[in-house]
Amino acid sequence: MNNFTYWSPTEFVFGRNTISKTAHLLKKYNGTNVLIHYGEQFAVKSGLLNDIETLLQHHFIHYVKLGGVQPNPMDTLVYEGIELCRKENVNFILAVGGGSVIDSAKAIASGVYYASDFRNFFEGNVTINRALPVGTILTIPAAGSEGSDRMVITQKDGLLKRGTKSPFLRPVFSILDPVLSFSLPAYQTASGIADMMGHIMERYFSRTQGVEVSDRMCEGLLKAIIKESPTVLNEPENYDARANIMWAGMLAHNDICGVGREEDWATHKLEHELSALYGVTHGAGLAVMFPAWMKYVYTSGIDKFVQFAVRVWDIKETDNKNETALKGIESLKNFFSMLGLPVSLAELNIPNPDINTLIEKLAMNTGGRTGAFRQLDMEDAEAIYRIAAK
Amino acid sequence: MNNFTYWSPTEFVFGRNTISKTAHLLKKYNGTNVLIHYGEQFAVKSGLLNDIETLLQHHFIHYVKLGGVQPNPMDTLVYEGIELCRKENVNFILAVGGGSVIDSAKAIASGVYYASDFRNFFEGNVTINRALPVGTILTIPAAGSEGSDRMVITQKDGLLKRGTKSPFLRPVFSILDPVLSFSLPAYQTASGIADMMGHIMERYFSRTQGVEVSDRMCEGLLKAIIKESPTVLNEPENYDARANIMWAGMLAHNDICGVGREEDWATHKLEHELSALYGVTHGAGLAVMFPAWMKYVYTSGIDKFVQFAVRVWDIKETDNKNETALKGIESLKNFFSMLGLPVSLAELNIPNPDINTLIEKLAMNTGGRTGAFRQLDMEDAEAIYRIAAK
Repeated sequence: MNNFTYWSPTEFVFGRNTISKTAHLLKKYNGTNVLIHYGEQFAVKSGLLNDIETLLQHHFIHYVKLGGVQPNPMDTLVYEGIELCRKENVNFILAVGGGSVIDSAKAIASGVYYASDFRNFFEGNVTINRALPVGTILTIPAAGSEGSDRMVITQKDGLLKRGTKSPFLRPVFSILDPVLSFSLPAYQTASGIADMMGHIMERYFSRTQGVEVSDRMCEGLLKAIIKESPTVLNEPENYDARANIMWAGMLAHNDICGVGREEDWATHKLEHELSALYGVTHGAGLAVMFPAWMKYVYTSGIDKFVQFAVRVWDIKETDNKNETALKGIESLKNFFSMLGLPVSLAELNIPNPDINTLIEKLAMNTGGRTGAFRQLDMEDAEAIYRIAAK
Repeated sequence: MNNFTYWSPTEFVFGRNTISKTAHLLKKYNGTNVLIHYGEQFAVKSGLLNDIETLLQHHFIHYVKLGGVQPNPMDTLVYEGIELCRKENVNFILAVGGGSVIDSAKAIASGVYYASDFRNFFEGNVTINRALPVGTILTIPAAGSEGSDRMVITQKDGLLKRGTKSPFLRPVFSILDPVLSFSLPAYQTASGIADMMGHIMERYFSRTQGVEVSDRMCEGLLKAIIKESPTVLNEPENYDARANIMWAGMLAHNDICGVGREEDWATHKLEHELSALYGVTHGAGLAVMFPAWMKYVYTSGIDKFVQFAVRVWDIKETDNKNETALKGIESLKNFFSMLGLPVSLAELNIPNPDINTLIEKLAMNTGGRTGAFRQLDMEDAEAIYRIAAK
């Protein structure tokens, strides 16, 4: 096990009708002049935004609003948010939405105090050392940004999707009401599930030895997600199933699964290029890229793939490690299919992927190398895109 | 799943040589005038206390010292600590030791700002609403106090062992260096393991439905502990095994296993009377009381006990639920025996337990009823002590 620091200070308020605690939490964390940040669809149409405004008015909490966050959130709106916060002396950002809204809020929060271009934070040579406090009201269980120290923003110039992390990006509070996810369409629900499973697997597939506790955390979370997934799809208003999926999405990414080990993240890098170039839903892209990545790398760490097959998918272990490992990978792929997700680029409506451009952008974003379980160069990455194509 | 708030803001700094971060962490959390609080044995004899003093001196951090905390820490020393902190204007308490030292530090921290007797916090009608910040350097993986919002103190008058919780009791940082546990004797190591397993099982055995994620967290942690335990006993200096056990001890009690459910805690209440009256090691007492409690209550929630047997102990499920459940309980008892722990009051060197006195004190501490998985009255409690006797 490697040395690590684990710090997850977010106050999670979970359950039915927890939105009613918004004003109390804003006061607790000194949010007196708030930017409410939200997306294009759900917050407005569902009446949620209206409810929150009423609550804040009732408690005499001043606020301004900025909506319009799109999936794969754009830097253009972030610049707008930074301007608005400075102009209005905002001291708290309340993100109402899924991972895209929360990430956009985090980018604004960290950009407000930074005199230069916030995109420098993604270049690796500028550290975030101050940010406005962010609170979240989560509507889509998927990205885990409600409990994570990370953000991903798409740069409009060149469609580059870039991520970074900092302790200052941890939300101070997150309200998770599973009822808000009842109306989430099946495809988005399934994509969210693939997203959270991806966050676990990026941590799980590690070469670091002696991490039994966090391995078991990863495996337990995956098993719980696998069990609850058919229920949320068949009974979208099943509270307990929605609740378990929503809580799993947070745990998948707040780092409890990753402590003490080298993480991988190659599959996310490969997928980010798909999202940036083709605008695909991140989770759906992961459902395509994970089995492809696994098929390419499993021989480099066969024992971990055998463990994955046996402990997560209940595959009976035999002497033939390759066979056991492949059965685990196949189980994951079948599971994604069963959720209605694409498992090839063709199924993702990209019949002729522009692999040259994908690789070119990937090389630019990674310096030509990515991954840790097996370090990939751009030839490896190309081979994985080709496996994913079919 | 029930509504819940989960807030675990402690900064955990984990790994080899992490003691070197003590001064940095004290500065980060404004500890400029520190009380170093420690026990009777390890901190002094191992040289650890000396190392910490040298570090603080080197960084010009002022400190005073209070040692002498005993297992099952006493209120008498807490009063002394409160006086000392007030007299010296201490603004931070650094606990160097195991759960007893940390709990004693928490009691001092919450008592300093309270004008009346700190023991009122344990009566349920006075709330802790302020406390000095506490940092910990953990030497014994067991109690989980390094990451919990709880404390247990023994009152010298009448030997009452009482617990309470408050968000103000969460340490601001905890340094966990597994190397510090290398010299822990086998019996204390095993007792610590029973203690952390107890913290998980008090949460796991719940009547709340729809808690698959936290059930899987509990089961995964138990399985990891079961796997690593023989190694720490056979190879006390095996870093990875010690590290997994140390991290598991924190996770067992910071509430990640308990969110969204009604917890039980009857077995802890039963054991606290043993500790208070006979001074037994808490974990060893739990190793006796848990199987006894289980044998008495399992028919009240047979499905959970079947799940425990199947998922944690790999018992093959059959149509005979009673048989499966009992095999799980027997597996736990055998596991404790294998660790060298007592599994009866006789083996705990209490051949003739004074059950009347135990019940009398238990009635006083619980109001005559305890537990939630099955609510126990004092007749039930007496029956469980009798099962434990043999």
